[in-house]
Amino acid sequence: MTKKYVYLFSEGNASMRNLLGGKGANLAEMTNLGLPVPQGFTVTTEACIKYYEDGEKISQEVVQQINEKLAELEKINGKKFGDKDDPLLLSVRSGARVSMPGMMDTVLNLGLTDISVLGMAAKTNNERFAYDSYRRFIQMFSDVVMGIDSDKFEKILEQVKKENGAELDTDLTAENLKEVVARYKELYKKEMGEDFPQDPRQQLLDSITAVFKSWNNPRAIVYRRLNDIPGDWGTAVNVQTMVFGNMGEDSGTGVAFTRNPSTGEKALFGEYLINAQGEDVVAGVRTPQPIATLKDIMPEIYDQFATIAENLEKHYKDMQDIEFTIERGKLYILQTRSGKRTAVAALKVAVDLVEEGLITKEEAVLRIDPKQLDQLLHPTFEPNALKAAKSIAKGLPASPGAASGKVYFTADDAVNAAKNGEPVILVRIETSPEDIEGMHVSKGILTSRGGMTSHAAVVARGMGTCCVAGCESIKINYKEKCFTVGDVKVNEGDFISLDGSTGLVYLGSIETIEPKVTGNFATIMEWADSYRTMKVRTNADTPKDAKTALDFGAEGIGLCRTEHMFFDEERIPAVREMILSETEEQRKKALAKILPMQKSDFKAIYEVMGDKPVTIRLLDPPLHEFLPKEEKEIESLAKDMGIDVDELNATVANLHEFNPMLGHRGCRLAVTYPEIAEMQTRAIMEAAAEVKQEKGINIIPEIMIPLVGEVKELEFVKNVVVKTVEDVLKEKGVKLTYLVGTMIEVPRAALTADEIAAEAEFFSFGTNDMTQMTFGFSRDDAGKFLEDYYEKKIFEFDPFARLDQVGVGKLVKMAVELGRKTRPDIKLGICGEHGGDPSSVMFCYEAGLDYVSCSPFRVPIARLAAAQAAIINKDR
Amino acid sequence: MTKKYVYLFSEGNASMRNLLGGKGANLAEMTNLGLPVPQGFTVTTEACIKYYEDGEKISQEVVQQINEKLAELEKINGKKFGDKDDPLLLSVRSGARVSMPGMMDTVLNLGLTDISVLGMAAKTNNERFAYDSYRRFIQMFSDVVMGIDSDKFEKILEQVKKENGAELDTDLTAENLKEVVARYKELYKKEMGEDFPQDPRQQLLDSITAVFKSWNNPRAIVYRRLNDIPGDWGTAVNVQTMVFGNMGEDSGTGVAFTRNPSTGEKALFGEYLINAQGEDVVAGVRTPQPIATLKDIMPEIYDQFATIAENLEKHYKDMQDIEFTIERGKLYILQTRSGKRTAVAALKVAVDLVEEGLITKEEAVLRIDPKQLDQLLHPTFEPNALKAAKSIAKGLPASPGAASGKVYFTADDAVNAAKNGEPVILVRIETSPEDIEGMHVSKGILTSRGGMTSHAAVVARGMGTCCVAGCESIKINYKEKCFTVGDVKVNEGDFISLDGSTGLVYLGSIETIEPKVTGNFATIMEWADSYRTMKVRTNADTPKDAKTALDFGAEGIGLCRTEHMFFDEERIPAVREMILSETEEQRKKALAKILPMQKSDFKAIYEVMGDKPVTIRLLDPPLHEFLPKEEKEIESLAKDMGIDVDELNATVANLHEFNPMLGHRGCRLAVTYPEIAEMQTRAIMEAAAEVKQEKGINIIPEIMIPLVGEVKELEFVKNVVVKTVEDVLKEKGVKLTYLVGTMIEVPRAALTADEIAAEAEFFSFGTNDMTQMTFGFSRDDAGKFLEDYYEKKIFEFDPFARLDQVGVGKLVKMAVELGRKTRPDIKLGICGEHGGDPSSVMFCYEAGLDYVSCSPFRVPIARLAAAQAAIINKDR
Repeated sequence: MTKKYVYLFSEGNASMRNLLGGKGANLAEMTNLGLPVPQGFTVTTEACIKYYEDGEKISQEVVQQINEKLAELEKINGKKFGDKDDPLLLSVRSGARVSMPGMMDTVLNLGLTDISVLGMAAKTNNERFAYDSYRRFIQMFSDVVMGIDSDKFEKILEQVKKENGAELDTDLTAENLKEVVARYKELYKKEMGEDFPQDPRQQLLDSITAVFKSWNNPRAIVYRRLNDIPGDWGTAVNVQTMVFGNMGEDSGTGVAFTRNPSTGEKALFGEYLINAQGEDVVAGVRTPQPIATLKDIMPEIYDQFATIAENLEKHYKDMQDIEFTIERGKLYILQTRSGKRTAVAALKVAVDLVEEGLITKEEAVLRIDPKQLDQLLHPTFEPNALKAAKSIAKGLPASPGAASGKVYFTADDAVNAAKNGEPVILVRIETSPEDIEGMHVSKGILTSRGGMTSHAAVVARGMGTCCVAGCESIKINYKEKCFTVGDVKVNEGDFISLDGSTGLVYLGSIETIEPKVTGNFATIMEWADSYRTMKVRTNADTPKDAKTALDFGAEGIGLCRTEHMFFDEERIPAVREMILSETEEQRKKALAKILPMQKSDFKAIYEVMGDKPVTIRLLDPPLHEFLPKEEKEIESLAKDMGIDVDELNATVANLHEFNPMLGHRGCRLAVTYPEIAEMQTRAIMEAAAEVKQEKGINIIPEIMIPLVGEVKELEFVKNVVVKTVEDVLKEKGVKLTYLVGTMIEVPRAALTADEIAAEAEFFSFGTNDMTQMTFGFSRDDAGKFLEDYYEKKIFEFDPFARLDQVGVGKLVKMAVELGRKTRPDIKLGICGEHGGDPSSVMFCYEAGLDYVSCSPFRVPIARLAAAQAAIINKDR
Repeated sequence: MTKKYVYLFSEGNASMRNLLGGKGANLAEMTNLGLPVPQGFTVTTEACIKYYEDGEKISQEVVQQINEKLAELEKINGKKFGDKDDPLLLSVRSGARVSMPGMMDTVLNLGLTDISVLGMAAKTNNERFAYDSYRRFIQMFSDVVMGIDSDKFEKILEQVKKENGAELDTDLTAENLKEVVARYKELYKKEMGEDFPQDPRQQLLDSITAVFKSWNNPRAIVYRRLNDIPGDWGTAVNVQTMVFGNMGEDSGTGVAFTRNPSTGEKALFGEYLINAQGEDVVAGVRTPQPIATLKDIMPEIYDQFATIAENLEKHYKDMQDIEFTIERGKLYILQTRSGKRTAVAALKVAVDLVEEGLITKEEAVLRIDPKQLDQLLHPTFEPNALKAAKSIAKGLPASPGAASGKVYFTADDAVNAAKNGEPVILVRIETSPEDIEGMHVSKGILTSRGGMTSHAAVVARGMGTCCVAGCESIKINYKEKCFTVGDVKVNEGDFISLDGSTGLVYLGSIETIEPKVTGNFATIMEWADSYRTMKVRTNADTPKDAKTALDFGAEGIGLCRTEHMFFDEERIPAVREMILSETEEQRKKALAKILPMQKSDFKAIYEVMGDKPVTIRLLDPPLHEFLPKEEKEIESLAKDMGIDVDELNATVANLHEFNPMLGHRGCRLAVTYPEIAEMQTRAIMEAAAEVKQEKGINIIPEIMIPLVGEVKELEFVKNVVVKTVEDVLKEKGVKLTYLVGTMIEVPRAALTADEIAAEAEFFSFGTNDMTQMTFGFSRDDAGKFLEDYYEKKIFEFDPFARLDQVGVGKLVKMAVELGRKTRPDIKLGICGEHGGDPSSVMFCYEAGLDYVSCSPFRVPIARLAAAQAAIINKDR
């Protein structure tokens, strides 16, 4: 028996979404519910997959099944496809598992030919209507299926209108339209080298093929990547009997939501047009009417529609987005689907549906897309102000939020401007750790180079500062302190605005509105937490970040980076002195200056976090990051420190690394200079002891040793740490519990996790670095080729944004298994960027991690994703 | 029952080497053979391991067992340890599994105290001898066990000699020596803060402890690393009854080999001294006599020794290195072990032993240390000329061989000098791909930065050019074209000499001798090949390298890098034109210029290799490596190419990468610019077709796609390659078999090897890059901290020289297993540096690879190692 590739609507149901696509499954379901749905059939997603497997060809097998179902459809409608008297006309629409922009648009009126158009004219007794339908069909088919520019057809239409003194399309007579059709067909022949197809079956197969092809058009690929949709799902194709909303004043078409998609308010929300087809609504020539007014014009139809809408909502237990057409006083439902909604509406609808008894709290939690919560956690532009704004460039939406400010090009200038109370947008080709202070004081950050996980992007997300990265169209001129984009030139001090959620850059200042956390948001998060089993911590380096994260529900700090504390203007001299020390003695002297500063940092963070766990990572970046790079800065530093410029230059050159990512950093620093680890451990423990003595808070520091690849590395540094801890506790006369663990980020650490677990009390997966090393590309450099990878369908998503479960994930799972084998109670977490990505959080749950840690502004997202993981996996 | 930690010699045998150490096992064996061995006992290697496990303490358990065996030894000798009338005296020596320099030296005469010295004087009736023995013991114990500088004792001795008008030590009287002893004891007290130990058991335990400690002294650690000896083996300690070669003219001491260790000639070879102890031989005050002369002086002793020597050789079936002492006309054998020998001798002895029927051919093959063959494969300095030479610095022995030449500091200067017929030594801080031509023309390469697998080292080894890398003590001044080391200044044009096998740099020119491959060498290699199952290929980029490798027995090319061909002076303009192209059109035009050049390269290589397989790797390095870096060069290039300097600067800046190792390279280039892969494939296949047509040679090109991490990458590039191949074959009307495969070097490729094998007909493990990514450090940068890692015992060997079997090896094994699961007949090889390292070759055999590929000069080493692997694993 051959596989079934084509289903009549009456043969399917809502549960067959994977096979029939969302649209097809819903049409089938509505047919079974007895709703007035124009009948049709669905070509399955499997047929699409087969199409690609067969080398982009529709197999005879599938063609035959289409023909069979078409015959049944003809029987149902009592009309023949391409008939010269009363032709059956069809629409063809794509329909993937999930709604996806970028896929092929609709083709309407399919089945019209030079012959069947006559039948249509006769049957409807409306020649004008028949030729209008035909010309629309030719244009749509040529554009959508054959890729001929629609404008060329518009020009012909305008020309004919002009020739005949017609102002509106509706002014054209049947004869005029015949002329239009003739010219359209000429154009088609010129463009395609052959006549417009007069075989309706050819029209149908060409259209179905075009839908399959559109699955892999660039826009669809990008959309899939951004929305984590696998490329091997394929799309289904829906072939449906045409109904006409443009057959007179007793006809019409419209679309309505069962609730308000912006606010979630429970009331029919939508609009319609009398005597129109769907495309007229879009064309905007006439203004659609609010759905409520239909009650006055066609009260029975309205009531029928309202009842169907209510029933569909109850049936699907979710807000519906319904398309309908009224043909000569008869209502048809063309489509229903879950309505897209804002985050605010999503939360309200979910909570309301629970209150209405339609769904459970678990279902409500599953209804919210965690990524969507991002909208609620950052400032946004005031919508009306935004409408008036002029966008001048687009980069990567690297860190969400909206900000306006004056442009500055160096961190120092940014700091100075901020001191004067100016709102600052820091614009750099790329940022580096020495820009940290400048980034801190800025409202937004714009870079012309670097990807979603470039330094600017990562740091900005961590800070919750809005950032547009890799905006390649702007050309920055540091010397003249300006940037240009096209003809626009923006000078230092000029206002620009950034939308970090869209990547758009605007000229001038735009009013912003602060995020509001509504009652529904709190309710959903409360429900989520009641199902959640995996903990959610935050990556925070400052008391401010820690406080933000706590307010968002963080249950501890999973990653406190100590290096950012080193860049403070008052501290960097001591840090540089430490780096430039030639003896251990000198180095210890410099470290002694840093100790009290680090200690006070930790005390402040402990005080915010109370008795929640705090994981502190020892110094990670290569030391050269702390030294100046520009000749001038080096000269000035040499002067400050009383050393010879040449000598300093030599030291800087000596510290230069070919591949800093793979250089002298992480625990390697502590192996070479144990005194740095000693100082940091001392700061961590003295701070904990003092906070305990002063405030009675029981701190449990978790000291994390980064970049371990071999257990003996960890053993060496751990010995230094433990010895120092014990010394401090003895000196302070305090008893404190503490843990010593490691990052698992080097592939070899995952491969030898059984050995490493013997020395580590916890693992924290550093999936940023692990992704870099497992793939063998650095996030700073990958921007150069990743676009090609997406375009050529080699990658379907950004592995720095979404954890690569096949490769990196295999290492994570291996490390979890090996680690637990050696130390069953080992604490496992993740502190890479992926800790705030919902699909990666799901993976972490399944891999058996105890917690995820993410930037403060993603904590609610991770909480929700973790709750969803627990609910979904509950019965497994 | 407790473990046995101490064995009398009579309780052990030769098979207990792991437990008793080499020396202890042989002393036991000789005891059992009935040879005249002074009796004693061995403290086991397990006691050493326990010592470290117990926190560097000898446990009571071990002490008790030592005391028990000491009691038995007293019984055997009929003497008491520390006795006031006739004391038992002991020697203490270290003895690991394999002989290891850097371990603790011998302590002789142990057991002498202020009291027992009197007994010794009485018993030997020789007060002078007794006090001479005592002062020697104090000095030795203080130096070797307590670490007091020996010179301080020498000074006292000289002082006493001066005070008493004595010229030689032998001129000192018993009274003088008593004075020496008294002053020695004073010195000891001053240095140690306590009296010289008068308890012989304390002396013994202190000495044993010192041996254990010496296992981890820095010199021992370095030696272990260089010789692949694990740190957890531990050392045994041998405690033996003293015999005295210095008791008169009927006494003596010596050492002899059963064959000549330099040539392998079968004849006793060694020397002795009458009336002397071992240290006197070393002291060089008297000249030892050749062993043959002993026949005249003590014919019976000589015959007895010669018989014992012959029997020991037959017993051990190998050349022996024997220490003996004659005490008052009685011969004692103190030690026997396999004698160290030169490579030449090793080959001759192995072949001779087979001819003598003592060992099998298999055993002969196993006897040769593959690494030692290196000595035979490169020029060396003429030994006498070398003695006169002055070494000025020491770097890493990066590529073996010896060379003299004039110093030049840039590749261009090197090329020009070579054109004038000068022998050149290229001296650079570090080398980069654009130095290739300069490296090619040089006799030797010296760099001040970079490790054993830095660019200079890898390229030099590949070329077989002598190289000393990372010679940090030399300070290079490019501007003044000179380098300094200490007070020595070497200018451009000055002669220096490099020994790439020792890392030594010499001032001036030294005569070299060319390597000779003797008949024994050929015999052993022939035997080896008869057992070998794994193929050996070579990494070769030029016909010259290919020819060298063929002569050394290579069975194909495992890695032909195409990028080196791009740096030729005549080609680089076209390469740069290609890189700077702004459109695909321009790029194709530039590539068309490169095509004939690449094709001629491949034809020349194919013609050398005949019908042996040739694996060609597509372009691998990031494109910026081909562009100039210095401002001046950029200006000149811009002029040559008729482009704006600013524009060129912008392009160069745009191609800059933060981590080039992890950047836009390997197959990523082919994804972005498929036309490069197209051109290279065309060159590979057109060359193969033409060589077939012109010479009738059936070439089977293996096209290798580098740096794959995801199967879709491979699929994409493979499609480009296969399409081009088919086009060429069609155009040329030739049928040729070809393979398309990939490097497995990115960790993710190993993790997903099952998927990748679906597209790859072969895997070649690129273990250089895989080591970098698995450990997360780049070979160029690791030099900064690896020394710390060795010193702190975190690493025991260089993972770039010897494959890390635990981590990287796990990935290799995983990939082999996954790859074969998908494609059972997949061809598997290795082309990283490790392909020429014997222990790594052994691993490759065990992992199931089909071949290893290494630089031409290591081919015989790999052949031998592969044969050994096959023999060792034969019965498994």
